[in-house]
Amino acid sequence: GVDKKILVIPGDGIGQEVTAWGQKVLQTIAVNYKHNFVFEEGIMGHVAIEATGTPLPDETLEKARKSDAILFGAIGHAKYDNDPTLKVRPEQGLLKIRKELGLYANLRPIKLFDELLEASSIKPEILRGADILFFRELTGDVYFGEKKRSEDRNTASDLMIYHRYEVERIARKAYEAARSRRKKLCSVDKANVLESSRLWREVVQELAKEYSDVETEHMFIDNAAMQLVKDPKRFDVVLTANLFGDILTDEASQIAGSMGMLASASVGDSTGFYEPIHGSAHDIAGKGIANPLASILSAALMLDISFGLKTESLRVIKAVEATLKQGYRTMDIANKHTENHFVMGTDAMGAKVLENLS
Amino acid sequence: GVDKKILVIPGDGIGQEVTAWGQKVLQTIAVNYKHNFVFEEGIMGHVAIEATGTPLPDETLEKARKSDAILFGAIGHAKYDNDPTLKVRPEQGLLKIRKELGLYANLRPIKLFDELLEASSIKPEILRGADILFFRELTGDVYFGEKKRSEDRNTASDLMIYHRYEVERIARKAYEAARSRRKKLCSVDKANVLESSRLWREVVQELAKEYSDVETEHMFIDNAAMQLVKDPKRFDVVLTANLFGDILTDEASQIAGSMGMLASASVGDSTGFYEPIHGSAHDIAGKGIANPLASILSAALMLDISFGLKTESLRVIKAVEATLKQGYRTMDIANKHTENHFVMGTDAMGAKVLENLS
Ligand SMILES: CC(C)[C@H](C(=O)O)[C@@H](O)C(=O)O
Ligand SMILES: CC(C)[C@H](C(=O)O)[C@@H](O)C(=O)O
Repeated sequence: GVDKKILVIPGDGIGQEVTAWGQKVLQTIAVNYKHNFVFEEGIMGHVAIEATGTPLPDETLEKARKSDAILFGAIGHAKYDNDPTLKVRPEQGLLKIRKELGLYANLRPIKLFDELLEASSIKPEILRGADILFFRELTGDVYFGEKKRSEDRNTASDLMIYHRYEVERIARKAYEAARSRRKKLCSVDKANVLESSRLWREVVQELAKEYSDVETEHMFIDNAAMQLVKDPKRFDVVLTANLFGDILTDEASQIAGSMGMLASASVGDSTGFYEPIHGSAHDIAGKGIANPLASILSAALMLDISFGLKTESLRVIKAVEATLKQGYRTMDIANKHTENHFVMGTDAMGAKVLENLS
Repeated sequence: GVDKKILVIPGDGIGQEVTAWGQKVLQTIAVNYKHNFVFEEGIMGHVAIEATGTPLPDETLEKARKSDAILFGAIGHAKYDNDPTLKVRPEQGLLKIRKELGLYANLRPIKLFDELLEASSIKPEILRGADILFFRELTGDVYFGEKKRSEDRNTASDLMIYHRYEVERIARKAYEAARSRRKKLCSVDKANVLESSRLWREVVQELAKEYSDVETEHMFIDNAAMQLVKDPKRFDVVLTANLFGDILTDEASQIAGSMGMLASASVGDSTGFYEPIHGSAHDIAGKGIANPLASILSAALMLDISFGLKTESLRVIKAVEATLKQGYRTMDIANKHTENHFVMGTDAMGAKVLENLS
């Protein structure tokens, strides 16, 4: 077995409820496959602001640097959303840890479990067979460019900025992934309007020559947002900037039936960072009804990508699949037209997956 | 009858094919209702670059200023998309005319004709009853902020910037529209990350007090991109910035069955500007298969918004509806599972609408 140090950061809202299940799954895998996973816990986000005044305490960042992988929940709180003038904000913690750990590549696989074919608002015949892997750039763009507010507070700006090396390193990762998939890469930008997108396109065009075994397509973000709903099967690997990736992957959650099903991996130079795509979801936080599967599938991604434990990772995915086959559903993926669905809360659902792991 | 001067700018690609039908519809309306519409033609985009070296010749801009309304087709050409280093680009023409005419509010109504319920990739039960009016800010944001490229060409940036007055004037228009609709306004931003979005949210929050009869909701762009597919009926008026609006409205085209159905109105201080949401679509340009209905519906918006001719506008919409009821379809809205559909090209479809106008 392997020895690994895992930092668990539940964060805010439903992060607190679902992350426990990602962790339990990792613990079960450790026992079953005789690995030694040591867990630590860290705080980040609104909970960290409440406890320490800052959204990413140094202590958490230190623990993160020393860990082999991080399992994260979610970030954000209505208090800050309702008051845009607050200076210290939960999301700053997430952005800072992404930057500090050099997590420049955010992988978001979008794949529909057959059992959820009916859970989506999109027609099953449009969805069947869709299988997309997003590469979202994660440490550049308008997220990290300089932010300004004029003294009279009447003008505000954010700099959308990219450097060649930032585009190149994520594009390489995306091309490598495309090679081991269906050999198609779609790069999404807004090169007809944005200079940063024109740089993006230039760099990808250059790399396209190097990866000539992969079919490269360039698409404008507006068109991509449309095509994703119209014909998701046309995509294999999608490569895009931070902001566009944020938007497209949330949209793509409908391809997977629900946001509650989507896991992501953020990787870069060292430690990998695993988190559901969904947010803190204040509206359902504390009710025990959130879907734990995105956190559990994030754990599966960790096993595969950070630890190279493919068998174990697949085992987790199979357990999720089995649970869905048995008809167990959280609210977000329940189909009210189906009789043999058992709708349950976070903990009951998590427990079913654990059962199926054994 | 009224006297109006209308500038027609077919632009690039399928713009050349569909705009003729928007114009013919206006001509037919003029005859039927005894109005005097005088038409002029202008060039813009790739065709203008080819003819004059600039995407928006002064002559076109002059004509635009002197007209009561403008019917525009589409802009863009593969040549520029494939070469991001070209300095003179078709889209600059469109951006310049929007700025010069002060067209800060882009209205994009998304409504499904009953006959097209099956044409979308989204389930009919999700779509039925959806009726959204987008207010996209059109003369600010990262579209118009300073663009920079470093001397070594390795760094590129675009400034995402908003001024209070820019947010306020479009927000007011959106609130006024919401008052005459279902009294719900959803403002879309990314205030958890962007300073420009935080200004946006502050301004809308202030106006929300003034328009307290309208229910205001704030939503992050990533969530909005998801909700639009998941539950489009939850939206009434959607207010958003230039870039987010570009993305969301293209995505929303799937709610209307096809991009080929969507019209838009850009208004501001003077002349109104009417155009389909679809682009120049190089892939089908010149084939005579583009859907002319978006241009025809843009003409209907012109009659209503710029000329106050509500009866005439409704007459056009009814003619489109009748044409669809008769089973006539362009390729993009044809349903291969339905027997009594007659699939036809641009001109045949346009002619059917004209017949139904008489
Ligand atoms: C919470 C927020 C800062 C974050 C982002 O925009 O990156 C989230 O939406 C995500 O996608 O991980
Ligand atoms: C052609 C392009 C510049 C334009 C835009 O992005 O505004 C188009 O996509 C639109 O939506 O009108």
